[in-house]
Formats: sequence, C-alpha cells, structure tokens
Amino acid sequence: MKQLTHGGDIYSKRDIPKNKKIIDFSANVNPLGMPPSVKNAIIDNIDAFSNYPDPFCRELTDEISRYESVPRETIICGNGAADIIYRITAATKPKLTLLPAPTFTEYQQAAEIVNSTIRYHYLREDKGFIIDEEILDKLSPDIDLMFLCNPNNPTGIPIEKELVLSIADRCKLNNTFLVVDECFVDFLGNSQKFSIVNELKDYSNVIVLKAFTKIYAMAGIRLGYGICYNKNVIEKIHSIGQPWSVSVIAQKCGVAALKENQYVSKTKNIIKENREYLIEQLRLLGLGVFNSEANYILFKSGNKHLQKTLEKQGILIRCCDDFIGLNDSFFRIAVKAREDNEYLINSLEKIMKNAKNKSC
Amino acid sequence: MKQLTHGGDIYSKRDIPKNKKIIDFSANVNPLGMPPSVKNAIIDNIDAFSNYPDPFCRELTDEISRYESVPRETIICGNGAADIIYRITAATKPKLTLLPAPTFTEYQQAAEIVNSTIRYHYLREDKGFIIDEEILDKLSPDIDLMFLCNPNNPTGIPIEKELVLSIADRCKLNNTFLVVDECFVDFLGNSQKFSIVNELKDYSNVIVLKAFTKIYAMAGIRLGYGICYNKNVIEKIHSIGQPWSVSVIAQKCGVAALKENQYVSKTKNIIKENREYLIEQLRLLGLGVFNSEANYILFKSGNKHLQKTLEKQGILIRCCDDFIGLNDSFFRIAVKAREDNEYLINSLEKIMKNAKNKSC
Repeated sequence: MKQLTHGGDIYSKRDIPKNKKIIDFSANVNPLGMPPSVKNAIIDNIDAFSNYPDPFCRELTDEISRYESVPRETIICGNGAADIIYRITAATKPKLTLLPAPTFTEYQQAAEIVNSTIRYHYLREDKGFIIDEEILDKLSPDIDLMFLCNPNNPTGIPIEKELVLSIADRCKLNNTFLVVDECFVDFLGNSQKFSIVNELKDYSNVIVLKAFTKIYAMAGIRLGYGICYNKNVIEKIHSIGQPWSVSVIAQKCGVAALKENQYVSKTKNIIKENREYLIEQLRLLGLGVFNSEANYILFKSGNKHLQKTLEKQGILIRCCDDFIGLNDSFFRIAVKAREDNEYLINSLEKIMKNAKNKSC
Repeated sequence: MKQLTHGGDIYSKRDIPKNKKIIDFSANVNPLGMPPSVKNAIIDNIDAFSNYPDPFCRELTDEISRYESVPRETIICGNGAADIIYRITAATKPKLTLLPAPTFTEYQQAAEIVNSTIRYHYLREDKGFIIDEEILDKLSPDIDLMFLCNPNNPTGIPIEKELVLSIADRCKLNNTFLVVDECFVDFLGNSQKFSIVNELKDYSNVIVLKAFTKIYAMAGIRLGYGICYNKNVIEKIHSIGQPWSVSVIAQKCGVAALKENQYVSKTKNIIKENREYLIEQLRLLGLGVFNSEANYILFKSGNKHLQKTLEKQGILIRCCDDFIGLNDSFFRIAVKAREDNEYLINSLEKIMKNAKNKSC
C-alpha cells in the first residue's frame, strides 16, 4: 500500500505512552475548531443526509457567490480542494507542468497520474524559500499548467498580489493554465494584499482554489471550491468526475460556515499571536525558522530523530523529507492554541537539552 | 451547465403546489431511512470531523473485511461507489468498453471521459430486458473493460451468479477487466444467489462494487467500496485520485452501519412486500411493468407527460429517456414506504382516469 506522507495521520499505531494524548501539529487546521453553527448545521439537517446531494451545490454556490462577490457561474465546489486539483489535471491533461519546489505535494501527484512531465522552479534556502520575480523567467510557452500555492505550503510565505498577477499575465500570454491555491489565504493577517479573487475576471486562464477544510476546521467533512471566469473550464471540471462528489453534509456545513461573522477575524488574531510566539521561541532554541505568515511554520533542525522523539511526548509534527527541494532536516508545525504551543516548545527545549548533554 | 438527468433532484425549483410535500420516487434509497446507530455515530463523533480522514479508512476497512469475509487488502473505499467507478476508468484507461443497454448511465460517462469507445449489448424489450447467455457471445478479446450492474439499473432484474461467473471466466480469458456493480444486491430477497463476492478470489480481473448509499440510506453522506483480489488494481484505484476522498463522517457512519443486525433483513421484507404491491397495482392500471426484484421498478406508459403530471402532486419519478436503449415512455420508481406507494398509485389512477375521460 502507498505510504502515508501527509500530516494529520492520527490513525496509525504509534509509540506513544498511554498517559499522553495526541497533539497533532502535523495538520494545519484552525485551532478554534469547527464553529458551533457548523456543528448545528450537521445536527439540524441529519435527516436530509439520506438524500442524494445536489450535483450543482446550488444553495452553497449562492452563498459562496455572495461571500466572494463573484458570479455564481464562476464557482465549482469539490470534495475538498484536493478533489478539484485532481479534476483540473484530468481536465487539462498537461504535457508539461511547472511547480515551485518545495510546495504542496498533491500537485505533483495529480500531474503525474495524467503522465505530465514536471518541471520544478527550485526556491532557494538562502533566500528563505521565498517566491520572487525570478520565477517569471521560468514561465516559458511550453508549460501547459502551473500551480502556485499562496501562501506556499510548507513555508507559510505568501506571494504579493502584484507578483501573482505578473505570473498570471505571463501565463496568459503563454497559454498556460494557472492554478492559484489560496486554501490558506484566510489565515493571513491581510488576505486582501495577497488574494487575486477580485482580479480574476481578467484571467480566463486562472482558477483560484479555496477550502473550508482548514479555515473552518472541517478537514474531515471535505469541502473546497474553485473560482474561474472561464465557463468551459468550470464545466469540464464538473463533468470530469462523479456528479455527487460534494456530500449533503459538506453543502449544509459550507452554507452555515459562510454566515459566520467573527470567526475568521478571531482566527486571524489567534494565529498571529501564536505564530509570533512560536517563531520567537523556536529561534530562541536556536532552530532555523522561515518567515511564515500563515498558520504553519517551517523550521530546520540538525536532529533527524526530532519527529520520533516528539512522538513519545504525544506530539505529531510533519517531517518534510518528501517535499521536492527539502530533506529530512526540515519540519513543519501547525500554529495551534497557546497551551498546545507551550507544550511543544517545552518538549523541544527538553529534547535539545538532552541532546546537548549527551554531546558534552 | 450540464443537464441533471439522474433521480434524486429534490433541489430544482418545480411547479409543485405549496400544500404538497415532495415525495421522491426518483432515487432508490432505503425507505427505512438511516439507521439510528448511524445518526448517533454522526452526533457522537462530531468533534472528530475537524481532523483529516484516514486515507486508508483502516477502521472501516476492518469492519467491511469482517462483514464481507474478505481480506482487508482486497478492499478500497470511495466517496460513494461512483467515486470508484470514475477511478476504475481512470486507472484502467480502456480503449473499448462494453456496456449492457440500458444500464446505469455513469459507466458511460466514466468511460467517455477517458476517451474509451463504447460498445453496447442491447437488452431486448421483448425479453423483458433480462441479461441472459446471449451476452457471452459479445465478450470478444478486444474489450478492455466491461460493466455489469447486478441487479441491473433501471430494471431491477438480477443476473444469477452462474451467469455472472461465466461472464467473469470469459473476461478472464480475454484479459477484460470486469466491474460487477452490486450496489443494490442487498435489497434482493436472496442476495447470496446473485452476489459473487465469495467467488471473487478466483478472479483477479474482477472488482465488485458495493454502496452504503442506498441500503443504509446514506446517499448524502457518500460511501461505497470495491472488493478485488488484485493488489495492483486496488493500489492503482487508491492512488489515481486524492487521498482523502472518504470523509471522517462517512467512515464513522460506515462502521456503525455494518454493526446493524436487523436493519438489512427488515429492509428486504419491507421492500419485497411493497414491490409486490406496486407491481400488482401498476399492472392493474394497465401499465407495462418489468420484473424487478430490487427496490425500484421500471415501467412503460404511453403518457409522455407522466413525469410532469405527477410532479404537480409532489411526486418525483425518473424518466428514463437518457438511458441508452430506452426512451421517454419508460419510467423508474423507487419502492418506498406503504403510505407513499399508495399515494403514488392513487395519483396514477387519477391521472389515467383523466386521460381516459379526455380521450372519450
């Protein structure tokens, strides 16, 4: 069976003492948990879950249209954003796909299963893995499809709107279809500075992906969407897979989530405060930390057993050895609630002290 | 936007008087509704829905393995059986696909999106659309993939195990991959007479599909599975799409559903009794009814406005004009609870009386 590489694997049997509960820093889900209104939507609609879902997600699409201020016909919903990623590669059948490295590993998987060649734009560690103007030189006309994750995963570093639009312009000239994955954009302090949703109408070659999964802590419910002003693309993505991919539950939860007023801004505040705390503490521990502005942090450690050692404290973190452009000295952690973050920092401190004592 | 053709569309705006509630005969879902234990599984696990799903559905797979008496490595779970259908065509990339006609329309869609040529084995109306030995002559070595729906949809007519195994044998000789869709098999009085799950170990070229969607009334939750003794096939189906297609909710509900003891046998009884009632009544009304043994019935009517006319009574039925091999004089209805079935029959009676009076 295929190896599990992603974060969020709380299901495998592990070497965790029985008195420790699992604290999962390996999946980047909102530490506030699901909004109560979303939980209520599940309970209140439970009898409707016997019905087949609306293949067009009409009620949900109307809500997204209102929330994003885009016409409803530009919206396609999916069984998580990952569903849409795989539908995009299946629908566009790229011969050549450009990916930054490192970035979210599912782009590569989705391109590989349609036999696309993959070209990487390697981000430089000495530049802190930022995506800058250098990428523009890589946008050649032979590229059929490009993925851009904003903020990038696993670094948490966002790309300013102006650069994303320059990339989109160049892609347009080159007839390259561009996927801008904004699944974590709502965790950024000022998402308007980075999101290109408002500019999308000028780009029929671009789709923006967003997810409920992370920001509304609905990872187990599966719900994401794409926005694209190219009607043919939307129709093709819809018809390339089964009609009922978005469950009734996901549709009902999505509608409830978008009616939340304070939840996203409250999330931004908590994430900012706790990210700053974690970055500061990790740096005080002497770890190499990259400049995340999202709800997860990439750092570097010489201790290659770090993941296993933390597991014994009940802590799961994401080792980044399967990311192209990284190796087993890079780790990603989610920004969680303060108590969990303190537990992580204390555990790291002990591990590093022990390691130091051993090496003395 | 693509047309909606399937049953279960309770979401479109319709010409239904406000005092009528919708009674949906167009989707073939268990009239008993979701078992209470499944509803409890949703409520009891609500906090777990923030976590990413287990991509390998390990807890659920163990339960299915126990329930079906097959090794766990032969099982692949999906976001409804439809998810697996699309993964199968994507994984096998058939050049030529054989389909009975009429049959479930998603096979055709799934084959078409991978550019497969489709060959039809037309079932004969004068034989009541049964699948018999004639089909063996159509199994030529140029066929890469074949779908067999047992019981067939929309007829509800099952194919006896011996014939299915003869088909599987011929397919094995020809190197044809055979999908036996048993999504409705548990509604049959004696499913053991038809299901080939116990014989599957001798056929590495066959996958059996089953669904929770219909039998446990979980259509809005989305859960299906495949059983195949070919490890490569299982791995390919798993890796051809996103890893998290089966939600945490679906996994928890599936585990709860399989622990139900009386529910399936109670369902079989209710379906039998009500199917017999409906078939008898439809025949008394002079309609051409085909010999279903499942939880849905195909019938023929000269009244091409039947669907629209019933809609005014709040009743949705499935017009079969999009099934290859049928036309707009064929209709499919689900077997529902007695009260609903009586309401349908009474409504049909009135419509037919009116039509008769008009023609006098």
